[in-house]
Amino acid sequence: MIVITKPDISEERIAEIVQYIEKNGVQPHVSRGTDRTVIGIIGKAEPTLREHLRQMKGVEEVIKVSKSYKLASRDFHPDDTIIDIKGVKIGGSNLVVMGGPCAVESPEQIDEIARLVKAAGGQVLRGGAFKPRTGPYSFQGIGVEGLEMMAEAGRKHGLLTITEVMTPEYVDICAQYADILQVGTRNMQNFDLLRKLGTIQTPVLLKRGFSATYDEFLNAAEYILAGGNPNVMLCERGIRTFESYTRNTLDLAAIPALQQLSHLPVISDPSHGTGRRELVEPMAKASVAAGANGLIIEMHTDPDNSMTGDGVQSLFPDQFANLLKDLEKLAPIVGKQFSTAKEPAEAFATWKA
Amino acid sequence: MIVITKPDISEERIAEIVQYIEKNGVQPHVSRGTDRTVIGIIGKAEPTLREHLRQMKGVEEVIKVSKSYKLASRDFHPDDTIIDIKGVKIGGSNLVVMGGPCAVESPEQIDEIARLVKAAGGQVLRGGAFKPRTGPYSFQGIGVEGLEMMAEAGRKHGLLTITEVMTPEYVDICAQYADILQVGTRNMQNFDLLRKLGTIQTPVLLKRGFSATYDEFLNAAEYILAGGNPNVMLCERGIRTFESYTRNTLDLAAIPALQQLSHLPVISDPSHGTGRRELVEPMAKASVAAGANGLIIEMHTDPDNSMTGDGVQSLFPDQFANLLKDLEKLAPIVGKQFSTAKEPAEAFATWKA
Amino acid sequence: MIVITKPDISEERIAEIVQYIEKNGVQPHVSRGTDRTVIGIIGKAEPTLREHLRQMKGVEEVIKVSKSYKLASRDFHPDDTIIDIKGVKIGGSNLVVMGGPCAVESPEQIDEIARLVKAAGGQVLRGGAFKPRTGPYSFQGIGVEGLEMMAEAGRKHGLLTITEVMTPEYVDICAQYADILQVGTRNMQNFDLLRKLGTIQTPVLLKRGFSATYDEFLNAAEYILAGGNPNVMLCERGIRTFESYTRNTLDLAAIPALQQLSHLPVISDPSHGTGRRELVEPMAKASVAAGANGLIIEMHTDPDNSMTGDGVQSLFPDQFANLLKDLEKLAPIVGKQFSTAKEPAEAFATWKA
Amino acid sequence: MIVITKPDISEERIAEIVQYIEKNGVQPHVSRGTDRTVIGIIGKAEPTLREHLRQMKGVEEVIKVSKSYKLASRDFHPDDTIIDIKGVKIGGSNLVVMGGPCAVESPEQIDEIARLVKAAGGQVLRGGAFKPRTGPYSFQGIGVEGLEMMAEAGRKHGLLTITEVMTPEYVDICAQYADILQVGTRNMQNFDLLRKLGTIQTPVLLKRGFSATYDEFLNAAEYILAGGNPNVMLCERGIRTFESYTRNTLDLAAIPALQQLSHLPVISDPSHGTGRRELVEPMAKASVAAGANGLIIEMHTDPDNSMTGDGVQSLFPDQFANLLKDLEKLAPIVGKQFSTAKEPAEAFATWKA
Repeated sequence: MIVITKPDISEERIAEIVQYIEKNGVQPHVSRGTDRTVIGIIGKAEPTLREHLRQMKGVEEVIKVSKSYKLASRDFHPDDTIIDIKGVKIGGSNLVVMGGPCAVESPEQIDEIARLVKAAGGQVLRGGAFKPRTGPYSFQGIGVEGLEMMAEAGRKHGLLTITEVMTPEYVDICAQYADILQVGTRNMQNFDLLRKLGTIQTPVLLKRGFSATYDEFLNAAEYILAGGNPNVMLCERGIRTFESYTRNTLDLAAIPALQQLSHLPVISDPSHGTGRRELVEPMAKASVAAGANGLIIEMHTDPDNSMTGDGVQSLFPDQFANLLKDLEKLAPIVGKQFSTAKEPAEAFATWKA
Repeated sequence: MIVITKPDISEERIAEIVQYIEKNGVQPHVSRGTDRTVIGIIGKAEPTLREHLRQMKGVEEVIKVSKSYKLASRDFHPDDTIIDIKGVKIGGSNLVVMGGPCAVESPEQIDEIARLVKAAGGQVLRGGAFKPRTGPYSFQGIGVEGLEMMAEAGRKHGLLTITEVMTPEYVDICAQYADILQVGTRNMQNFDLLRKLGTIQTPVLLKRGFSATYDEFLNAAEYILAGGNPNVMLCERGIRTFESYTRNTLDLAAIPALQQLSHLPVISDPSHGTGRRELVEPMAKASVAAGANGLIIEMHTDPDNSMTGDGVQSLFPDQFANLLKDLEKLAPIVGKQFSTAKEPAEAFATWKA
Repeated sequence: MIVITKPDISEERIAEIVQYIEKNGVQPHVSRGTDRTVIGIIGKAEPTLREHLRQMKGVEEVIKVSKSYKLASRDFHPDDTIIDIKGVKIGGSNLVVMGGPCAVESPEQIDEIARLVKAAGGQVLRGGAFKPRTGPYSFQGIGVEGLEMMAEAGRKHGLLTITEVMTPEYVDICAQYADILQVGTRNMQNFDLLRKLGTIQTPVLLKRGFSATYDEFLNAAEYILAGGNPNVMLCERGIRTFESYTRNTLDLAAIPALQQLSHLPVISDPSHGTGRRELVEPMAKASVAAGANGLIIEMHTDPDNSMTGDGVQSLFPDQFANLLKDLEKLAPIVGKQFSTAKEPAEAFATWKA
Repeated sequence: MIVITKPDISEERIAEIVQYIEKNGVQPHVSRGTDRTVIGIIGKAEPTLREHLRQMKGVEEVIKVSKSYKLASRDFHPDDTIIDIKGVKIGGSNLVVMGGPCAVESPEQIDEIARLVKAAGGQVLRGGAFKPRTGPYSFQGIGVEGLEMMAEAGRKHGLLTITEVMTPEYVDICAQYADILQVGTRNMQNFDLLRKLGTIQTPVLLKRGFSATYDEFLNAAEYILAGGNPNVMLCERGIRTFESYTRNTLDLAAIPALQQLSHLPVISDPSHGTGRRELVEPMAKASVAAGANGLIIEMHTDPDNSMTGDGVQSLFPDQFANLLKDLEKLAPIVGKQFSTAKEPAEAFATWKA
């Protein structure tokens, strides 16, 4: 930590700051510049010391040299975290593909989509039972029933399942049905939800807030890790910018950047990250080329009639299957492994875009 | 609602869209342009119709002509909402000032600050008992004990109280102690929290998400209103931009814009909106000049030692009192009423910046 | 300047950095922390030293402690700059109002608008002869003829004039006709234009780039000042955000912030800053309350038919006159002087909104 | 074009708008909704009609259905533009790599770097002679001499050359030396510069403004095309966001999006797009996977001592060569052709990172 003073600070004030630092059990190291004085702090300070120093008179700025998160940091945990869920490994050199509809709509819908995800080579079935919606009059998901339908479809077709949980109260019931719990972009800083997720061991896919920095994102992951749950995946799903052609701006540099800063697996969501079907495929490939540990992709058998209106960003099953075939070729070039299933093209014949 | 087709759409596809619209109980009105066809929709459509149309093949865009929120809209409720809390009126031509520390720290601290807020002419005491913090190792508030201390200080000095609630589970206990519940910027789209707040009658101050649009903000208010609680205030507290000199960029145009779009009172938070003590006073005045119905301002008797580190944006008591004197002169020029208390300047003598 | 090293840096590398700093004629001051080493630099370094240090191996970050601009800084020039143009003073406690159409359209148009600006109490006539337009097929201004018309109208009605200059080649001709030259938001970093403006003495109103930071803005001003022209005004005109209801987000905190960082006058443009007529008046008042040294406001006698399409943000003459009357009352509360002319309300009778 | 009226508009006002539209030689088509009236416009309207309608009383919004750019649009020119420069083809299925230092520093520097770019398989040598810098005291490039040095190095090693031009006055001299002229991000809307570039035939690489939308970007290209120069490449180089870990946020979805909207080649700049050496390689690969027609990458033999300080984002020669080898494998998967030269690894032995 480094304290930078205002230009006109008095010697008395500097002495007060120095004493304050010493009182907190760490060592000040004063450098007097032509304009300003800089005080380096040596030793492990309490997290609140920075906050207190920032507000002292005569202080212009306090700069963190160490990061505020620890368990999420690669400094603390140099090796890649690999999460093993019923034999599916997420992290390291494995590439995982999660596919499925925005929302679970009926047992038939989710069963058929599960079959197609499996046939194309996907390992995880996604689907929402509780949907966060901008306005109160939009479709809010079918609830617990949807959890049951998805669990059943996953079991039948040999897929893991992932679903979104929106509030602490529902964590236990969601964890009972799904293999992975997803925290949505609007809840990245729902701290009570994060704390609750820290108390269980179910893997969590934490989506980046649509205006969150990497530092805030990793601090949000830290809440879950600090609670005792080490099974966290980070998900880049696009940030808000002034561009309105796309729904969000998918920040692919976040993938290698987060992998350098942290040991946690990084998953990319090109569906929400673009909001346009025709951009999903190039951005899925770009995500893998950038080093993503996995993808979460919306796929629907009847996108025109999806209940949430997100069909506009859903792939048709044959598009999904073709994309995965390309990923199989692309993965080894960037040191990743991915194999699609052996299903023939005919498996997707009914479901052409 | 207006549907704009892609340039190369076939007549059959147009016919399908038209039928789909009719099937939904509203009337299509087709205009064929040189490039594209435009289909106007007449009548009250289900909120999900737009979402379905957006994802139909051949559709380029679907534009809302009416707003997605109703109860929050001035179209629906032309007169200003005035919320009366124990005789303090918020909304219309009244100017209300809420002041206090970022966090409740001790009975003595909150009692002394309450005395000073009252002496300066404030009507509401603010203070946090549950604090949303970016990282898990920062001070998280003193919890229910803090609620008790603040309620006691408010009672003693004749002030209303406002405090933040972060999760549905705590709504009832917070409502038991405080007169107004605040939803923080990170929780603006915590929909389960909003739904819970819709089930009670305690007034809610809803802070704008730091990257939310006006439309999303009013839709979040709609969740509370639609649940049955009409007592909602909107609070502009700054948005995130690329400027790092200020903590946030206070969007003052939001004040008159929201007042045109909605009947709900609009409160400005120049403390979080700037993050720098020296900018609070000019931005508080600017907020009132822009037409704000009230201000929420951080004030602390010992900002250098505030527990959250937000002291850097807290006014000293004498600065707070002087600001309120200026607001008394400024308010009538923009058609607002505000009177400070009759306390002499000496009341603030101990608490100079 | 402070150099922060990477955690794993070797002693040899530190020694190399230290030597490099000494070779550049300044003094290194090394502090070894638990994780990283921090090297403070004492003395006046060449501006490029930071850039070189940033790219040295083992260096994580180099933090500026002093600002990169000098002549624009209040540290360098503690007193407010007051620009005196033919007796009109801009800066300090004076409030100046500039009004007029987006574009000069005809001699009659600009003459009538000039009369009304003067009658309402404005001191400067604004009007564009060269217009920067997003697309090549939009109206691009009437050119030199427009400069002549505006100069004539200014002379006749006793107003200063301001017009935009877009390219170095046109600086001399524009300076021949206008009292103040405006640099538009898209040209804030047109460095050849700034350099050319540094070679003359005509006052310059420099608009903030719509995504520029305060630091970049003051560095752009520095180009003009460093060239030898001390007569620079800064203009806040709104930044681009994700909000689409307003054309831009007027960042009013920039007014007091820039006044703290710099001695140059700060002018606010609520017309471009909001893009909506009904928001101009509240934001003009808010700008003055925030401490602006002046306003530049679009006013048109026939906004429905303005040639640029910016009529949507132009005030009608009577709105402009009423606003200035309110500013007369508001100015003294924030320590500013402003007097409107003695013209009766009837002067504006023809030009009601 | 579609006009949406305000809810409370009178029949007379609607009639006036309808007449105004007819007077402009196009056909109005009125749909009366429950709340508002919508007027479709059929036929080719003047570009200014939208602007005039926007500002008429009673009008809420005017929505463009057709795009404002024509020559840049794929609607107008369905086939990919392929620019042939001395036999190097840019566009279509070709992948082109441009490499070189931020700034030309000396004949030896640029000669050695040219040799290495060629040896690694690059086709174009980049290098700045005129540098746009935030502050006036930074290194501004060595000027015309640099143009000569780069032209000589390009000739000797069989590479095309690209350099930045900042102002209309220098277009002719730059075009005399370089094969491609680059317009920097700050000059994307320097309309006088764009107009001047429209008068020559030298290919132009137009960088996206760091806060420009796709629509503004294509309108800027339209200025050059409309002037008569069809040889325009679009370059995505990152946009400004609130993330400060990276210098910019490289918006890779812009690549396929611009290729859908336009026929012009799209080049990606992962160096400026990230500002961090360690992110250049993954983002270069991701750019190609997203469909880029080419890359422009900073490479330097001595990044620690580059004169501009941009060494921090420059690859070392061996990193550059290794990257190109990977691109050779990656290109065919996304339907692109790219061959690196036959130079052995030893060619880069001296220049290891």
